[in-house]
Amino acid sequence: MKPLSPERYIEGVRHGNRRILGKAITLLESRAERDRALARQVLKGLTPHAGNALRVAVSGPPGAGKSTFVEAFGLHAIGQGSRVGVLAIDPSSRLTGGSILGDKLRMPELSLHPDAYIRPSPAGEDLGGVARRTREAILVLEAAGFDLILVETVGVGQSETVAAGMTDLFMLLALPNAGDEIQGIKRGMMEFVHLLVVNKADGAMQEAAEQAAHTLRQALHLMHPPDPEWTAQVITASARTGLGLEAVWQSLQAFRSTMLESGRLHLRRREQSLAWMWELVREGLEQHFRTDPTVAREQGTLERAVTLDRMAPGEAADQLLAHYFRDDAF
Amino acid sequence: MKPLSPERYIEGVRHGNRRILGKAITLLESRAERDRALARQVLKGLTPHAGNALRVAVSGPPGAGKSTFVEAFGLHAIGQGSRVGVLAIDPSSRLTGGSILGDKLRMPELSLHPDAYIRPSPAGEDLGGVARRTREAILVLEAAGFDLILVETVGVGQSETVAAGMTDLFMLLALPNAGDEIQGIKRGMMEFVHLLVVNKADGAMQEAAEQAAHTLRQALHLMHPPDPEWTAQVITASARTGLGLEAVWQSLQAFRSTMLESGRLHLRRREQSLAWMWELVREGLEQHFRTDPTVAREQGTLERAVTLDRMAPGEAADQLLAHYFRDDAF
Repeated sequence: MKPLSPERYIEGVRHGNRRILGKAITLLESRAERDRALARQVLKGLTPHAGNALRVAVSGPPGAGKSTFVEAFGLHAIGQGSRVGVLAIDPSSRLTGGSILGDKLRMPELSLHPDAYIRPSPAGEDLGGVARRTREAILVLEAAGFDLILVETVGVGQSETVAAGMTDLFMLLALPNAGDEIQGIKRGMMEFVHLLVVNKADGAMQEAAEQAAHTLRQALHLMHPPDPEWTAQVITASARTGLGLEAVWQSLQAFRSTMLESGRLHLRRREQSLAWMWELVREGLEQHFRTDPTVAREQGTLERAVTLDRMAPGEAADQLLAHYFRDDAF
Repeated sequence: MKPLSPERYIEGVRHGNRRILGKAITLLESRAERDRALARQVLKGLTPHAGNALRVAVSGPPGAGKSTFVEAFGLHAIGQGSRVGVLAIDPSSRLTGGSILGDKLRMPELSLHPDAYIRPSPAGEDLGGVARRTREAILVLEAAGFDLILVETVGVGQSETVAAGMTDLFMLLALPNAGDEIQGIKRGMMEFVHLLVVNKADGAMQEAAEQAAHTLRQALHLMHPPDPEWTAQVITASARTGLGLEAVWQSLQAFRSTMLESGRLHLRRREQSLAWMWELVREGLEQHFRTDPTVAREQGTLERAVTLDRMAPGEAADQLLAHYFRDDAF
């Protein structure tokens, strides 16, 4: 890739040049040392122009219909005058080198729309890496004028926690089961939820969906909301019939004004940024620690002693830390 | 305190000598450098004799009646032939130097019973310190032959997460409200729960408690259990009338056999020990990092830049790490 100047990147992104937008995200995703200085300059130039979108996590178990929902809801939002950026957090793409289905297949109409920009999950990264690249891609899309960012997760591992840490609103898709049961809501998810969408509420499933929505409203009622100003909402929807899409859109608008007026939106983002900075610091420290030769040599023995109840975990931790800091002449 | 030999400590604890038991826990709580080597030897000698109790976290919002429940349930368990150790995780005792109410007031009968041992939260520590001392106190009580350890939390901050990380079973006390509402279940708690006790189910509140139990059963049904072999149970109880105490006791026995038979109890404890070792390592690394003079000097400026959206969190983290590792000639 022929390198552009930082100014060309910044100008191009701000003018919504799609080719440069793509190149800018690719640059930020690059881990090559030679790209880092340039990437830093581009990010620095774009950051002051970012922050104006509503950032929405779209989560849910496999089979909840996330792709078709994002396609339908994205087009609905564009119809309301929005410009929609779609990102994904998928650490499994590390193994497969990308989603099995391309975005043009998953979201045929949205992926071609001039007011949408879809970017798959960065490949070849662990979750920490995916999280960092996705955060930075949000800033790029915002600087390019996208005002609704949907961050899709695949529903495995910690990807939802990571998505919740970089978005304003957490939307969870659930599926009605036969009867009043709900399938596949992951442990810990309910605590993040601002908006719960019971999807595929059409045809024979519509009644089951209404039932499920009722039960979920009761369950959410028992939990403290992630943001005290906002009571979690439950909406039944169908990407196929369009049911509920306008209600979801209205809910997003209401959330945005409530959170802006109370100052909570900015507070949440500040907290997220600082938490994220410290999370990266901790990762960097742990990585350095784990690659220390003495630590690497002693670790197995100590872990075994702890596992076999021959040594208290506190004692093993002290010994590992002593090895590490002694070696490095702290 | 006149120091004993490590052998005297180990022997004394194993023979259930209460005075030496108390001295041993005090020794392990000490942060004085001169006590550390001895403490390590004592812990090392006791660890192989520990592990035979069922470890139970007893949590719930302030006002849920934790103390009176622990008093009543502890006596019930003793009546069933159990020996009961009670510990507490209360990082607020750092400020007050101990609970406002002493244990003899909070648990008048249990605190005097020869088959019970009650130890307040270590004072003068942050949560990490409290967690470490409490974990070690569990080992001491187990080595002394206590077979039911209740770890009480105060319901503030992260103390429940810490308690869940050192126990086999997480018991949450909740209160019936007027109507079918439940008050004060903290965010994230429901995900830990193995056993939910709707307390104070007596007199005028009994019907409300049954209602609440019904709603809670439905809500728990929607969540994935912390251990797949065990379905969370909901029991109504009253420390005053004794209602439900035997049901709670039975539930604990059933949990123990299920988890022992499946091998999950040992698996969970191994995972907890390793996770705890690494948690202490991370704390040690972060503490060293935060007290580094260059980091301390640069931190404020970088945090401000991140907060004001002038710098991406990733960039700020990189800069802090570069300062740290450069200084220390890594």
